[in-house]
Amino acid sequence: MNAPTVVDSVAALRAQVQDWRRAGLRVAMVPTMGALHDGHISLVRIALEQADRCVVSIFVNPTQFAPTEDLDKYPRQLARDLDRLREAGAHLAFTPSVGEMYPAGFATKISVGGPSSGLETDFRPSFFDGVATVVAKLFLQAAPDFAVFGEKDYQQLCVVRQLCRDLDLPVEIVGAPTVRDAHGLAMSSRNAYLGEAELDVARLLNVILRRTAGALSTGTDEAAATEDAAKALISAGFRKVDYVAARASVTLAPWQRNRGGRLLAAAWLGTTRLIDNVEIPSA
Amino acid sequence: MNAPTVVDSVAALRAQVQDWRRAGLRVAMVPTMGALHDGHISLVRIALEQADRCVVSIFVNPTQFAPTEDLDKYPRQLARDLDRLREAGAHLAFTPSVGEMYPAGFATKISVGGPSSGLETDFRPSFFDGVATVVAKLFLQAAPDFAVFGEKDYQQLCVVRQLCRDLDLPVEIVGAPTVRDAHGLAMSSRNAYLGEAELDVARLLNVILRRTAGALSTGTDEAAATEDAAKALISAGFRKVDYVAARASVTLAPWQRNRGGRLLAAAWLGTTRLIDNVEIPSA
Repeated sequence: MNAPTVVDSVAALRAQVQDWRRAGLRVAMVPTMGALHDGHISLVRIALEQADRCVVSIFVNPTQFAPTEDLDKYPRQLARDLDRLREAGAHLAFTPSVGEMYPAGFATKISVGGPSSGLETDFRPSFFDGVATVVAKLFLQAAPDFAVFGEKDYQQLCVVRQLCRDLDLPVEIVGAPTVRDAHGLAMSSRNAYLGEAELDVARLLNVILRRTAGALSTGTDEAAATEDAAKALISAGFRKVDYVAARASVTLAPWQRNRGGRLLAAAWLGTTRLIDNVEIPSA
Repeated sequence: MNAPTVVDSVAALRAQVQDWRRAGLRVAMVPTMGALHDGHISLVRIALEQADRCVVSIFVNPTQFAPTEDLDKYPRQLARDLDRLREAGAHLAFTPSVGEMYPAGFATKISVGGPSSGLETDFRPSFFDGVATVVAKLFLQAAPDFAVFGEKDYQQLCVVRQLCRDLDLPVEIVGAPTVRDAHGLAMSSRNAYLGEAELDVARLLNVILRRTAGALSTGTDEAAATEDAAKALISAGFRKVDYVAARASVTLAPWQRNRGGRLLAAAWLGTTRLIDNVEIPSA
């Protein structure tokens, strides 16, 4: 595979994508914050199943971090990321600076209601404003035909779909299954913060969620099941559970038994916050 | 001139504009709330000086009215509007329903900071959120090359420019001079609310603003000049003055003497609220 072309200006990004689209090529985008792992690479592969060209943005977006969060220590490893993108066959890497994305005087914010209510927002109040604003910008900068987002960040996927529907952004959103290690641990750039003993605990998150989703689908009371799951996470070694919650699959409104559902959780392992989610199977 | 084609769905709007752009035609948009007067028609004429095709949207946007405002009584006169658009040579009228613009479950809001601070926002706190959100949607629905906005709504023009810059919306914004009657009264759909005696008072708004802008440019103290202007408006017959304020021309930050400036005002005549603005000439 050829190495991807690297551009760091909006003008160069636009020019390249416009050339491709004028030539009749179908263009996909995969927005990332870098520190690419097998989960991201699967998004690129899925993109390339349906697109002729794939743009990957690598931008650690400061507006989706709270002042107390890990913006400064968030892993950055561009050379390694570009190697992985070459292997995966991505065509263009867009690596803007903070100043390119947010020039002096920048002052606009997009707030998506609906699926952004609760869950992550209860603990990271302006997280999805930051995500929605940067995703809208990336889509308007690149003008891809479609974009691929992982189900790992399930609430984010729902918020981005709502954003595009509400603002008439002409970008199709493709959701991609979460990539997991052999023990079921969801790939995450933040797993790099975990030592071996912590990884053993982290691997129980998906086990407990799958068990709880199964219990919900076979009739266990919702409050009892999610409370048991939170207790099981603490017993397993998690320090704190932000939430374990059953929700409707698309709107993230309260789950209605016998309807499609998703079980979502966020929990702390030491100073690292992990999230995961699983489908609630129909009974 | 031919009558403009009228479409009320986003799909039909998109299809028509895409056809034009594929054919290499340059497309302009003029967003309006209908009740078209000579001011709007001048926007269409300016659009057609630089474009091959002109789309005019007619949509009384509920999200930019506060519950206490005149949404229900805002003038609606589609047949007459279409006659005027035919005379002006507009090609397409986009007349969406509220449900087409805001389908069930709609939940997204765009907030533009910077130039939206103060002035109108002090009196209509969510007005520019409503404007920014609907303008972004209209631009993403129609995808015009450029759009024309009147300087009559000067703060709105600044907010729309900031919106496009911040979100990388690929639409050029053209500002158009305010159209005035023979007495200098700015054209406004809300002038229709005024009786003859009130019109005589309304016509003093631009006179007082021009006099005040002249005084500012020749060295009169800013606070004294704007206070005098507010008093003169009350003496002339206005019931209440929301603001008379000097601002920087682009950012609407506090005006700096010897820099480009704009003098903006809003005042009430009975139950009708009028706005106007003039340039502060360089000394």
